[in-house]
Amino acid sequence: MHLTSEQRLDDGVLEREFTLGEIPGILWTPASAPAPLILLGHPPLGLRTMYPRLVARARHCAAEGFATATIELPGSGDRPRWPAAEQARADLRRAMEASEPVSDEIVDALVLPLVEKAVPEWQAALDALLSLPEIGGPVGYSGGVISIGIRLAVVEPRIAAAGFFAGSLVPRAMFEEARQVTVPLHVLLQWDDEGNDRQAALDLFDAFGSKEKSLHANMGGHTGVPQFAGDAAAQFFTRHLK
Amino acid sequence: MHLTSEQRLDDGVLEREFTLGEIPGILWTPASAPAPLILLGHPPLGLRTMYPRLVARARHCAAEGFATATIELPGSGDRPRWPAAEQARADLRRAMEASEPVSDEIVDALVLPLVEKAVPEWQAALDALLSLPEIGGPVGYSGGVISIGIRLAVVEPRIAAAGFFAGSLVPRAMFEEARQVTVPLHVLLQWDDEGNDRQAALDLFDAFGSKEKSLHANMGGHTGVPQFAGDAAAQFFTRHLK
Repeated sequence: MHLTSEQRLDDGVLEREFTLGEIPGILWTPASAPAPLILLGHPPLGLRTMYPRLVARARHCAAEGFATATIELPGSGDRPRWPAAEQARADLRRAMEASEPVSDEIVDALVLPLVEKAVPEWQAALDALLSLPEIGGPVGYSGGVISIGIRLAVVEPRIAAAGFFAGSLVPRAMFEEARQVTVPLHVLLQWDDEGNDRQAALDLFDAFGSKEKSLHANMGGHTGVPQFAGDAAAQFFTRHLK
Repeated sequence: MHLTSEQRLDDGVLEREFTLGEIPGILWTPASAPAPLILLGHPPLGLRTMYPRLVARARHCAAEGFATATIELPGSGDRPRWPAAEQARADLRRAMEASEPVSDEIVDALVLPLVEKAVPEWQAALDALLSLPEIGGPVGYSGGVISIGIRLAVVEPRIAAAGFFAGSLVPRAMFEEARQVTVPLHVLLQWDDEGNDRQAALDLFDAFGSKEKSLHANMGGHTGVPQFAGDAAAQFFTRHLK
């Protein structure tokens, strides 16, 4: 892990960019260290595109005493594409433009390889991050591609709690994997999210094996998550990581 | 409204019993007055039976700076029964003992007259309570028979926010009435509540006309609402009544 840049944000949060091999990432730490860590998931649109929303989440978490970190997903940002993913993205675009249902084959081709590639990278990032003196355990995972979060919660014992954002394009296989999740879960669902299959989101929530799981459904579209829903998610992590 | 008894609880909350005509009720006020009021709904099991849960809710609300009040429901406690309700209760018991589905007719007979009778009584209680100097507006309604809460939210403009506990035995007609509810709503659903039809609860949440409505689904049976869910409900009322 190489730190490549460092700046102090106006609210005192220290933002450091790093690379982990070929993978760029960002680490935010609050003034109070050591702090528990929350991994910030995000959609595969590239860290640069996602930066404004990520830094807002990081500041919010820092205000609650959490360090946060994120890494670029495989095939996003400046990272190399791979042909099957490009094909799956093109198929998805075509289906959506034609207002056709997105087939299971497209969803599997789009998501499953991403999960396979990304999860070991997040685990490697975790190894590196937890070696820093300003990061203490335990670790939470929040948001992003829900299938990555599910796999990570299943295979990575250092994840002690997870906050998911219910989204569509979840492969059938991940519903089975969801039954193996046992960490406390906090799931946000935008009830009228036009790009989301509400029933599939409810079915996925039902599938999770966790004894403590909460679903918070709110009004507003995909990007219209109310402020109070963010506060509730922060309280969830405070309960479980502090 | 006649105050019939008064005691100071160990946490400083003032508990006063009252009668409003024939109807007994209880008022809890925090040390900080005037305080906004939350009406505490409850199932038709009698105030005496429900007292331990009611006083726990009242103390929790008082700690957040709210006054609370409740009244006996028609046909409960020492209040006179009426034959049609007794018949409906007997029909319900028989259906449940036989593990038969509870028909729409039984649900209507059980709930609709209760709503018709109870709502004007809660409105009269509101008139009396709001005349007390230690009660300020605005007013919230919380819990209990959800159909009573729906009707009250529709017909009573002094109700500024409502917290509902998703339960079964909701007449079809109340789903239509739910579309007329416009106040901010906070709905609790116990996901694995064996006595509750989950899909009906989700359909009812969907029906509410409120622009701000949140569904908080948690694990545990009917009486297993986690402490943090109560805290979230308190935060909802703090957002809207303070």
